[in-house]
Amino acid sequence: MDGQELAYRYRAYIACLNERRFDELGLYVSEDARHNGRTLGVDGYRAMLERDVHDIPDLVFHIELLICEPPKIAARLRFDCHPAGLFLGIKVNGRRVEFCENVIYEFRDGRISEVWSVIDKQAIETQLE
Amino acid sequence: MDGQELAYRYRAYIACLNERRFDELGLYVSEDARHNGRTLGVDGYRAMLERDVHDIPDLVFHIELLICEPPKIAARLRFDCHPAGLFLGIKVNGRRVEFCENVIYEFRDGRISEVWSVIDKQAIETQLE
Repeated sequence: MDGQELAYRYRAYIACLNERRFDELGLYVSEDARHNGRTLGVDGYRAMLERDVHDIPDLVFHIELLICEPPKIAARLRFDCHPAGLFLGIKVNGRRVEFCENVIYEFRDGRISEVWSVIDKQAIETQLE
Repeated sequence: MDGQELAYRYRAYIACLNERRFDELGLYVSEDARHNGRTLGVDGYRAMLERDVHDIPDLVFHIELLICEPPKIAARLRFDCHPAGLFLGIKVNGRRVEFCENVIYEFRDGRISEVWSVIDKQAIETQLE
């Protein structure tokens, strides 16, 4: 896959998340996918996403920046949402928060095999001060 | 600059930081450089770095992952250090912490013009619990 194809595939993955088509996750996520050092596989990855959208019902992934060098992609994702209760240990309790996630993915055979994600917790804390 | 040249330039920038050659920062950082939405310029950027190494005397930037698509670069940087006092609002007080920063840079004319950085604050909090 060249850079353009990989970026296209990544955008399809993000659309899958935003449309909550979690049954299709196996198209985009490898069977032994790892996330921040933990092996999740497709099932664990899906469980993580289901927990995320349970905790943040209006969660929408917006791609702000995309840097593509196959087999890796880096993205800056932006969120504007209302976490229902606790989020990253912060008592958000339904308030609106805007924050970013800088995240790097490695792909294998067109599917995500590893994810290194950092969420801007400090930005959330600053907004709620 | 192609991807290889840009990556080479980025590694030279990181070496400049690790060797504390801040007088040379203007070779790598644009005069109107922005960092997380704030215009710092070279002087403001240098002041930020000098504050960082004051707060963390043993700060070393280690490139763990590098994704290069000119004019942008994304990196996962790893740190293993002893912040002297407060760091990101956390009372580290000289204890050892390991953490990552996922950071995206835009280059213009071979110099950094914009930076979007997120530090894994949660990882630090978890280590100090």
